[in-house]
Amino acid sequence: MKKITVKNREEFTYYLFLYLKNEDEEKFREEFLELHPTDQNEIFKLMSNEKRKRVYKYVTAREFADIFSGLQHYEQKMVFSELDDSYALEMLNELPADEITDFFSEIPEHISQYLLEKMDKTEADNIKHLLSYKENTAGSLMTTEFVTVLPSQTVSEILERLRMEGTDAETIYYLYVTNDTGKLTGVVSLRELITASLNEKAEKIMKEQIISVSPLADQQEVSKVIKDYDFLAVPVVTSNGKMLGIVTVDDILDVIEEETSEEIGEISAVKGALDLEVSSMEATKKRLPWLILLLFIGMFTAGLISSFEATIAEVAMLAVFIPLIADMAGNTGTQSLAVVVRGLALDKFDRTKVFRLLKRESFTGLMMGIICGILVSIIALLIPQGNVILGLIIGTSLFVTILFSTVSGTVIPLIVHKFKIDPAVASGPFITTINDIIGLLTYFSIATALLHYL
Amino acid sequence: MKKITVKNREEFTYYLFLYLKNEDEEKFREEFLELHPTDQNEIFKLMSNEKRKRVYKYVTAREFADIFSGLQHYEQKMVFSELDDSYALEMLNELPADEITDFFSEIPEHISQYLLEKMDKTEADNIKHLLSYKENTAGSLMTTEFVTVLPSQTVSEILERLRMEGTDAETIYYLYVTNDTGKLTGVVSLRELITASLNEKAEKIMKEQIISVSPLADQQEVSKVIKDYDFLAVPVVTSNGKMLGIVTVDDILDVIEEETSEEIGEISAVKGALDLEVSSMEATKKRLPWLILLLFIGMFTAGLISSFEATIAEVAMLAVFIPLIADMAGNTGTQSLAVVVRGLALDKFDRTKVFRLLKRESFTGLMMGIICGILVSIIALLIPQGNVILGLIIGTSLFVTILFSTVSGTVIPLIVHKFKIDPAVASGPFITTINDIIGLLTYFSIATALLHYL
Repeated sequence: MKKITVKNREEFTYYLFLYLKNEDEEKFREEFLELHPTDQNEIFKLMSNEKRKRVYKYVTAREFADIFSGLQHYEQKMVFSELDDSYALEMLNELPADEITDFFSEIPEHISQYLLEKMDKTEADNIKHLLSYKENTAGSLMTTEFVTVLPSQTVSEILERLRMEGTDAETIYYLYVTNDTGKLTGVVSLRELITASLNEKAEKIMKEQIISVSPLADQQEVSKVIKDYDFLAVPVVTSNGKMLGIVTVDDILDVIEEETSEEIGEISAVKGALDLEVSSMEATKKRLPWLILLLFIGMFTAGLISSFEATIAEVAMLAVFIPLIADMAGNTGTQSLAVVVRGLALDKFDRTKVFRLLKRESFTGLMMGIICGILVSIIALLIPQGNVILGLIIGTSLFVTILFSTVSGTVIPLIVHKFKIDPAVASGPFITTINDIIGLLTYFSIATALLHYL
Repeated sequence: MKKITVKNREEFTYYLFLYLKNEDEEKFREEFLELHPTDQNEIFKLMSNEKRKRVYKYVTAREFADIFSGLQHYEQKMVFSELDDSYALEMLNELPADEITDFFSEIPEHISQYLLEKMDKTEADNIKHLLSYKENTAGSLMTTEFVTVLPSQTVSEILERLRMEGTDAETIYYLYVTNDTGKLTGVVSLRELITASLNEKAEKIMKEQIISVSPLADQQEVSKVIKDYDFLAVPVVTSNGKMLGIVTVDDILDVIEEETSEEIGEISAVKGALDLEVSSMEATKKRLPWLILLLFIGMFTAGLISSFEATIAEVAMLAVFIPLIADMAGNTGTQSLAVVVRGLALDKFDRTKVFRLLKRESFTGLMMGIICGILVSIIALLIPQGNVILGLIIGTSLFVTILFSTVSGTVIPLIVHKFKIDPAVASGPFITTINDIIGLLTYFSIATALLHYL
């Protein structure tokens, strides 16, 4: 396995492309197959249609499976359409069940149905079962390739079996002890197996109290278990104790990445449009609807202000502080939103915690509101056209704005989460707009009331 | 190892607390020590001062090490101050070097110096060495407890050694083949070792091309290597090939969490204040400075508008669209910012990519600007006091605002990243303010120029 560094990547790529061009199959295979799959993958992605076709010829379906499994879904779809049926099927047979399932859930159903019919029956049944789980659950993440041992097997028997048979399992670092009905009764880590004496039985060294997840558990919960317990894999077990599969830590790393993008999308209203690789047409198509929606929501704020047009016509100075109120509403609300979104992602919430958080955020908003309110009043006194009344108006409004924004930035995402509404409703810009309206309403109401003192 | 679920946690806690209260050491030890350290930890955190003191008496320093290592830094500091010297030192000796280092970098230097003098000399030297690495580098993350084997050792010799000696190593799933000068020459995974024939030599089955990181590598780079290659650990190696330690995947899970909080902090100006557990006083202390800073920056925008007071006094209607322009500036800028921040986190950037992204975002901004600009012009025509000129003013301004905001939301974080300026400068609110200023400046400039047509 050769290592590619940033420095020599271009060189590697250059030579590999040259071999392809010269149709030097032997040289290509020799150099290419020695690379780590991740590097093979990176180089494969740079290839033209023609070069890719040559790769399918030079590299066996079995060898190609590793490359395929590292591609993004949209790349997989493109590549898959270039493969002939028998090559594609042979390659699929090499892939772990969870990856096939992942891929199948992305392609049209008639194609996946067709492939399932052509595939090995046991494997096909397996995948059909996995496909029946909802996206983002432990069931859809798990792989069914794991190692089981019997309670009565000894350490040396197990080691001998692993040595002789090898294994297709995704990890052999945990061995799952199941009885004849498939019920999970214990777990032995390979570490424990290696350090146990050779004639010890599995049932003697296994841990009997097993930390597992249900196939219906949300991926966030699975990720939390693996992170909290520093596991390399967690077993997926039905309510009656039957073991279905395992979710491994490398799958969780991908889950975490996905969830982070979701969190950030939530705060910044770019849900599902964080990809760097899409065209500007694609990016526009994903982001523009949000902007248009926000534009219409923004018209509400405009409508609100227009009802105070008479006030503004009398004291134009008042318009000066509109962006200040609006921006502070946005800033404070987003701070609270970020706290809650991050908190929900780390799954730290029960009733007591929600209550404690609400209390904390309210007090925080109160203190920040008082201090910023006083500060801005003083500034309003000091500026050229400033006076006490202006200070009072803007100070009070800012206080209300900050207090309200902190609370709404906390409560709205919590409600959305609790009632499983689309989290986008709680995204930054929406909360900002609500806070804007409250802030500006307060501002202009007080201003209109005190107009003849200004 | 017993499993605690949400359902039985309270019951477990109740009984354990009862045993402590009744000073029933035997019962407490029996039940408590059978729990997974993560669960021991959760229950320990709920204990009063008095109960904790009893735990230190009932549980040996060796056993307590696991609990200690799962605590947050601030909890570790509190607990540590409650331990007597010999217990504390014995416990430290049980902890992996990377965790001691982590803890020592959080406590006053005179205390860590004192402890280092009292500790076992080899371990102390080890930790001094680790402490010399800058925070967030591979060197500061790594642990020095790993398994090395000699090239000439056979599979059965290595297995025998692991079985006899056991090991304190953080992972035994990779065995590192080093020659007599400590130079890393190969890696054997335990999986390969298990499936190899017993009399094979390590040098025969090892992978010679090793993917490693430098001790100075940023934690983000380390995390990327582990994620991309699906590793359980990566060796940390000096430029002359000497192996210093390993970084394991569970450390990386913590790194990713930390980096995510940073990303979100960047977008929402709550840097370092996302913790749910702090008091409102603490939260205010961390978040208020940002708000005050943003308040002062907001005064610039106010100042800018005040220079157009005469225009507003003449056509009060113009004030109505101030929040719309300001909010759209914020929304568009934040979308681009989120794309870049996420992209930088996943480390996908070289010169070509930066250029491509800039081009894409500019086009995206152009298209979104044109469409939103036309839309808002039409709306401005349709509202009661609307007319063509107002439509022209607001449409053009919104177009400029969206185009500029998309570009600035892309360029500013990239510049900040490139020149390693504090990323907070590129946070959402700061970019929003700049975009506000440009948007409103355009709006009022055009409005002032076309004033006598309105």
